Amino acid sequence: MPERMSGVLCPVVTPFHADLEPDGARLARQCRWLLDQGVRLAVFGTNSEANSLSVGEKIHLLEELVEAGISPEDLMPGTGCCALSDSVKLTTRAVELGCRGALMLPPFYYKNVSDEGLFASFSEVIQRVGSPDLQIYLYHIPPVAGVGLSLKLIERLIATYPATIAGIKDSSGDWANTRALLDQQWPDFRVFAGSESFLLQNMQHGGAGCISATANVNPAGIVRLFETWSSESAPALQKAVTETRSIVQQYDMIPALKRIVAHFSGDEAWSTVRPPLTQFTADLAKELLEQLESVGFAMPGLARASAT
Amino acid sequence: MPERMSGVLCPVVTPFHADLEPDGARLARQCRWLLDQGVRLAVFGTNSEANSLSVGEKIHLLEELVEAGISPEDLMPGTGCCALSDSVKLTTRAVELGCRGALMLPPFYYKNVSDEGLFASFSEVIQRVGSPDLQIYLYHIPPVAGVGLSLKLIERLIATYPATIAGIKDSSGDWANTRALLDQQWPDFRVFAGSESFLLQNMQHGGAGCISATANVNPAGIVRLFETWSSESAPALQKAVTETRSIVQQYDMIPALKRIVAHFSGDEAWSTVRPPLTQFTADLAKELLEQLESVGFAMPGLARASAT
Repeated sequence: MPERMSGVLCPVVTPFHADLEPDGARLARQCRWLLDQGVRLAVFGTNSEANSLSVGEKIHLLEELVEAGISPEDLMPGTGCCALSDSVKLTTRAVELGCRGALMLPPFYYKNVSDEGLFASFSEVIQRVGSPDLQIYLYHIPPVAGVGLSLKLIERLIATYPATIAGIKDSSGDWANTRALLDQQWPDFRVFAGSESFLLQNMQHGGAGCISATANVNPAGIVRLFETWSSESAPALQKAVTETRSIVQQYDMIPALKRIVAHFSGDEAWSTVRPPLTQFTADLAKELLEQLESVGFAMPGLARASAT
Repeated sequence: MPERMSGVLCPVVTPFHADLEPDGARLARQCRWLLDQGVRLAVFGTNSEANSLSVGEKIHLLEELVEAGISPEDLMPGTGCCALSDSVKLTTRAVELGCRGALMLPPFYYKNVSDEGLFASFSEVIQRVGSPDLQIYLYHIPPVAGVGLSLKLIERLIATYPATIAGIKDSSGDWANTRALLDQQWPDFRVFAGSESFLLQNMQHGGAGCISATANVNPAGIVRLFETWSSESAPALQKAVTETRSIVQQYDMIPALKRIVAHFSGDEAWSTVRPPLTQFTADLAKELLEQLESVGFAMPGLARASAT
């Protein structure tokens, strides 16, 4: 069984060309910069606009990343779609490419579905992918997906597929839920907080790290906290990363992250989003960047990385 | 400009083989039976498990229907997906095949998106499909999609694309919203109630008909009400169709509809659903069918149609 993942991962924001086609070369450069900061790659997360991309587009981007030399050992792509056939296709390709994990949303169109139905959905994906290399990290994000994963469901999945169900990203925003997951003490089950605001607490209770949108812009700060969480300086580091996140969080997260990357890389193309999202206005951008500057925020090395 | 649609349409339930692959031949037979009852075909609606099918599967089914002799004049497939690229691909193929309308969900993963972003989404689809034959019926179903369509957004879409934005299916379940849509008196804008429970009211206020899940099992009754809505017998017909719907509505709608079709056609294959939905249990099926029998419910001609 492959070693399971831990640390800080990032749902990398997805760059688009002016015609809204995904830009694989720019994404690969950004991934390389993130890896240099010590962050691994949960591409195709919510904040990657993953659900504004077709399965074909996601597979193509994944192939481009691996061809560009990004190690699949560092990749945990999001592969859960509404349609069973789509989830199977994308997950199969991720496993073929050697991705170390797959971050899997439940099917999210139909609401109030039963645990039985969700179990059947994950179960069908696992059986149809049919690979011992498949490592699933469940993705619990009820505020966006509208469909969540109960403790009972997770327990049943682990009991049935102990070698495959590797962990969870908890983006409920509810520490009590993350804590309940940790308290289960499931063997080698990796619990990632969905935000660095909970990173120290998560580590203190046996968690594996965090998978956080703000790792797109503050990777080094979050990694430093992860690496030194048991030291005396950890509470101060937690306070600092939480402060940066609080600034970004006041805004529409995805356009805000892209605006910040565009600004600090000097590469305006980063500001493009796909509908139904909308780009930041100049006024909002000014306000956001002033707030970040007031706390001494920077993205060292990004401009140089973007130019290569 | 093509004549816009009116009448009773049905989000046809999608049959699956035992391996969960869609069954185009069985679907075509069912569509023919529905057409014989006077119902047109809003295939790939919510109750068709449309969002449990990939774009490729939907395109293949649509091609099979047209090859089987179903007239595209009677087809209003659901074509709105989360990803812009998917919506464009599916809608383009529907228009190429000659479908008279496309029922379009907004992108539904990202929540709390702006009217500006939703406008951009529909706008990109319309421009990329780029056909004067495209007739969009907007699909408003906030209880499931989690993303709704405001009056202001609809007004802007109609003002910008008057030849393309043809109408709406209102599945809000809120008559006040349907009434507000009708009160706008947009020129030749077709308002379909999302349930036959509102059919008489909708017709009395200038509506175009209904697009209703229960038309899968009670097509003739709903069509009779549509055809005679201005007669004295209409209130009694409304009462009868509402009663049938109330029985079905107590249950998980899609498995219930499939169970009823399986029972009255004598074709057990109809009971299969894709995860995350689950099949009816035998106990629930008995209870549901007894209630339907107590009100004299029947599906004449279905068994014969299914056997052909």
